[in-house]
Amino acid sequence: MFHFDSDYMEGAHPRILERLTEINFEKIGGYGCDEYCASAVRRIREACGAPEADVRFLVGGTQTNATIIRSVLRPYEGVMAADTGHIAVHESGAIEATGHKVLTIENVDGKLTAERLETHLARERGDANRDHAVWSGMVYISQPTELGTIYSLAELEALSAVCHRWQLPLFIDGARLGYALAAPSADFTLADVARLCDIFYIGGTKVGALMGEAVVIPQGERIAHFTTLIKQQGALLAKGWLLGVQFDTLFTDNLYLEIARNAVRQAERLSQALIERGYTLTTPTLSNQVFVTLDKEQLARLSEITTFSTWEQLANGLTVIRLATSWATTDEQIDELIKAL
Amino acid sequence: MFHFDSDYMEGAHPRILERLTEINFEKIGGYGCDEYCASAVRRIREACGAPEADVRFLVGGTQTNATIIRSVLRPYEGVMAADTGHIAVHESGAIEATGHKVLTIENVDGKLTAERLETHLARERGDANRDHAVWSGMVYISQPTELGTIYSLAELEALSAVCHRWQLPLFIDGARLGYALAAPSADFTLADVARLCDIFYIGGTKVGALMGEAVVIPQGERIAHFTTLIKQQGALLAKGWLLGVQFDTLFTDNLYLEIARNAVRQAERLSQALIERGYTLTTPTLSNQVFVTLDKEQLARLSEITTFSTWEQLANGLTVIRLATSWATTDEQIDELIKAL
Amino acid sequence: MFHFDSDYMEGAHPRILERLTEINFEKIGGYGCDEYCASAVRRIREACGAPEADVRFLVGGTQTNATIIRSVLRPYEGVMAADTGHIAVHESGAIEATGHKVLTIENVDGKLTAERLETHLARERGDANRDHAVWSGMVYISQPTELGTIYSLAELEALSAVCHRWQLPLFIDGARLGYALAAPSADFTLADVARLCDIFYIGGTKVGALMGEAVVIPQGERIAHFTTLIKQQGALLAKGWLLGVQFDTLFTDNLYLEIARNAVRQAERLSQALIERGYTLTTPTLSNQVFVTLDKEQLARLSEITTFSTWEQLANGLTVIRLATSWATTDEQIDELIKAL
Amino acid sequence: MFHFDSDYMEGAHPRILERLTEINFEKIGGYGCDEYCASAVRRIREACGAPEADVRFLVGGTQTNATIIRSVLRPYEGVMAADTGHIAVHESGAIEATGHKVLTIENVDGKLTAERLETHLARERGDANRDHAVWSGMVYISQPTELGTIYSLAELEALSAVCHRWQLPLFIDGARLGYALAAPSADFTLADVARLCDIFYIGGTKVGALMGEAVVIPQGERIAHFTTLIKQQGALLAKGWLLGVQFDTLFTDNLYLEIARNAVRQAERLSQALIERGYTLTTPTLSNQVFVTLDKEQLARLSEITTFSTWEQLANGLTVIRLATSWATTDEQIDELIKAL
Repeated sequence: MFHFDSDYMEGAHPRILERLTEINFEKIGGYGCDEYCASAVRRIREACGAPEADVRFLVGGTQTNATIIRSVLRPYEGVMAADTGHIAVHESGAIEATGHKVLTIENVDGKLTAERLETHLARERGDANRDHAVWSGMVYISQPTELGTIYSLAELEALSAVCHRWQLPLFIDGARLGYALAAPSADFTLADVARLCDIFYIGGTKVGALMGEAVVIPQGERIAHFTTLIKQQGALLAKGWLLGVQFDTLFTDNLYLEIARNAVRQAERLSQALIERGYTLTTPTLSNQVFVTLDKEQLARLSEITTFSTWEQLANGLTVIRLATSWATTDEQIDELIKAL
Repeated sequence: MFHFDSDYMEGAHPRILERLTEINFEKIGGYGCDEYCASAVRRIREACGAPEADVRFLVGGTQTNATIIRSVLRPYEGVMAADTGHIAVHESGAIEATGHKVLTIENVDGKLTAERLETHLARERGDANRDHAVWSGMVYISQPTELGTIYSLAELEALSAVCHRWQLPLFIDGARLGYALAAPSADFTLADVARLCDIFYIGGTKVGALMGEAVVIPQGERIAHFTTLIKQQGALLAKGWLLGVQFDTLFTDNLYLEIARNAVRQAERLSQALIERGYTLTTPTLSNQVFVTLDKEQLARLSEITTFSTWEQLANGLTVIRLATSWATTDEQIDELIKAL
Repeated sequence: MFHFDSDYMEGAHPRILERLTEINFEKIGGYGCDEYCASAVRRIREACGAPEADVRFLVGGTQTNATIIRSVLRPYEGVMAADTGHIAVHESGAIEATGHKVLTIENVDGKLTAERLETHLARERGDANRDHAVWSGMVYISQPTELGTIYSLAELEALSAVCHRWQLPLFIDGARLGYALAAPSADFTLADVARLCDIFYIGGTKVGALMGEAVVIPQGERIAHFTTLIKQQGALLAKGWLLGVQFDTLFTDNLYLEIARNAVRQAERLSQALIERGYTLTTPTLSNQVFVTLDKEQLARLSEITTFSTWEQLANGLTVIRLATSWATTDEQIDELIKAL
Repeated sequence: MFHFDSDYMEGAHPRILERLTEINFEKIGGYGCDEYCASAVRRIREACGAPEADVRFLVGGTQTNATIIRSVLRPYEGVMAADTGHIAVHESGAIEATGHKVLTIENVDGKLTAERLETHLARERGDANRDHAVWSGMVYISQPTELGTIYSLAELEALSAVCHRWQLPLFIDGARLGYALAAPSADFTLADVARLCDIFYIGGTKVGALMGEAVVIPQGERIAHFTTLIKQQGALLAKGWLLGVQFDTLFTDNLYLEIARNAVRQAERLSQALIERGYTLTTPTLSNQVFVTLDKEQLARLSEITTFSTWEQLANGLTVIRLATSWATTDEQIDELIKAL
């Protein structure tokens, strides 16, 4: 039986476990004030081309999204997102629990488009009489999106321009950012991301770390008392160095991008094999997520071979499923899965 | 230079790192639905004598306190605590951020006493005209307390009886519970804790784990949709098995209590040495925290030898500091510190 | 110049001002514990055929919606509403500010249909794996709706049945309930409303009172510590009797329904006149709100005669506006407006 | 039987009811955008010597306190208050429900002293390591205080100076401000209040209005999107003109202060009579609240004559009660009460 449910099913890159073991009995200061975090911050600033960046290490995606959004917004503001955005549908109401509305715009292939955002904002800001509605206070996108699509450099620039024009911070959820950067179609770099948004995070949990997300504010400290806000949200790890060591390792010798490329390569191999065996990809595979539309018989057959995520039941009896490779997926695993198909 | 600032300065017991390394490439299901968590739950239930207990693994103390309190309280309720309680003073307002008041009662040696609690509740519930005040909805204590003191079995039973009489859940913050259980003066067991309160947690971050707190609801599922509430608070780790493996290890062969005993033994040795060298303990050392009252000269001297936590500046120019040992403190470290003194 | 912007533009029925003047110097107890409130409660219970009802008097609509919703929901729950529902679009995020998501379903003529609600709930409750989404905790509808449509008795019964089946409280926003009850097409009574929902309110602000909304929980006290919750939301009027007197007056000799009928009759006369003069009603006029679709010339002409609410700019250059009559609109006002047309 | 429970037991000054009756059928725009509100704003600005002031009309005290505090604070901040402050004890947790901690300082005669505030702030801001505690974000005082005492001009200036030095907004709860201004000992004017604080409100509910509190921000618009925030808190009255007319009346020909003086005069007469009949005043009567310490016999006797508020049961069997006069208390009422004593 294979397991391709998600990209958080393995532990960490072995180098990370080695380093954690090496320093296990060092006495290290708490809450991110230590040399390992400092080194990770330096490496991430360099990789982002953002020497002044404020970089923080949090543990998981929901807490990172909620902490950032409530730290940036004022009480009269909400956060804009595609209607398929993670914060709109799969965070258990974590954003609303902080008192803020998620304002949704209909997605195009899982993306929030600059055109639709501009239309919304022009109407909102042009409405003299809208004190009875929530104001847009920031824009959230995921890169890659929840549907596996990837914003191009031009799309990011267009969104950034709209946000800049309306003075709205642009926030990029990068829980799988490595897999977007490693995509063959990616025409942008980490430095582009840092240049085009106001705040983003580099996902570790799904890309090589045991756990952890690195929040980057490229322009430096724009959030007053951010440490208190992180603590208040329950997102300040006492042993912050656990996260620092991991990101320090991932950003040494380009490891983060390199292992992300493996996931993408394995997803390509798997996609090719599925097509050859008569399966229908729901959408072209762009990074590490493979979406397949199955009829009942195919569903039954695949269920005997591997686990996966069930994405959607279509009205016509077909089922969309998702297979996710990861940094840890091996040639052998894919070979054997292909053989079993 | 020595470092005795806190008990979260080292990593994890080596057996934990070994096991994490062993299973690093296993493919494991997410969000705590895995065999390692299941095994840890079984062991913790057994250790608590609570076969029906609902056991959950969260990452850190603040998030655990906030998640539990907001999951239990209704909007018209607050949580009662000693005025020295962690949630009243050192959680950055995390409880209030969930909409609930922390109702404080003046402490006696860092403790909330059954007598004062009873007096407060009798007055509150006897007041026909108190709709304009927050209602008590649960009681919070820390074991050991923030001042290093330890509730005796009789004290726990008295508190439990008051809570039971007024139908208030009793919640015990056990971030350092191991060090209380390992105290020479401790006349209670983990099963007593489970028997006498409605919800508590067993701290891992400070007692042998990389990170993690095991929440125990001895009577079983009393909190509806607890998983959603944990997720909403950003406290649901995707790789829940990281926590499961750690608590599974700590609750195998009594490891948790055994390593806690080491911390207490080293604190005793250190206390004895300090007394012999003319230092004044602020309070008798009960578990792994050593409080010392220093004059200016002693403060200067000790600052050259070791780091520690500054607790309080007294009006008379004296300073109270805290030295904390941990599960990882070695005989050699204490020997050398004593030598340096 | 005429003014038909809204139905909250006049004061109160003269009998209300007379009574307020009569009792102005009586010394009356605070917070709704007085004889006027008690009398109003008796009359409303009788009008609703709900002798056990818990009846409370709040000041305005937003505070009533927010107070009820946060008093009923648990933190893991959201409130379901049509996507055109007032709480979804025009409450400045008041619901989210209490920590709860508004879960929207696409409207049909401004209504939430039993079919769509059933489909949503069946999918939600049938999903074994939905801990990462907000749970439906109550259902909100407005009667009449924000688009001036009115749920029929059959529609209310169908919604009530779905809610009952899934054990969800049904909450009816009745800010304009009088105008729905007075509609020629209305095939339901106030007692039907009370029978079919779990909580609703009878709007006073727009129907004859200076201000005030009467919250009715037909089954009696289902919300623990409701007074504290109302106070906490800033919705407990010190001089509660101000509201009691008003509802006592409105529910004496059927005054509430009688004055509502006037508004509906005037809206009918106005609609007829508009049609005769070549204007196009956007939708048939059902109660006191008249929606008209205007071309540019008509818009310019009408703007010179009267004020109104601009509802929507259509893509084809047309504009939808709303004229609202009220309990206070006179025959003369409508006669003169018709003459001016 | 007399009734001296509180100062919110009567309706409104007759001139207010007359004006409401006069304009009852005028068609007036909503949400405070009308000529009556504009006129009231002009008069209040003039009375405050603050021509640029932002003035808003809200309905009641709790909603005003909660709206102001959450509009001013950032999420990492709390509001400082005396431990006897209304927001700390009698608002049903309304402040915490908005996510903010009330940080209390021990009162001196019901007051927050500049000295204690300075001590607290110097310690807080001097603590390099306090990211784990809530930051002070504003200072709340009541004038008069909850114990009937009154800040002198010198005390207000000292508090204002401390707040200015630490850049904290000073907020004055003036639910009974008229009675403080009318006190014989008052050495400050409304203009002094406006000059010395950043935001305050002028209570109408207890001083001559049916209901209503006028929020004044002397320096003009410092709170972005304040209308949305007021609406979000459920505090934006649709018929805002109801409040505008009342404050316009109260601030015409000095009516507000004049009627407040009546209350104070009647409280003095009552106090004098009580003393002459052997009763013990708990504290000297300063404005419209009379605190009396009664033994059991006196308590029984007084309970047969009048209603009052029970303030505190003293340990020695004595009871502190409060008698409150109001703008509406007549010479005859006091004469007869004195006779009955």
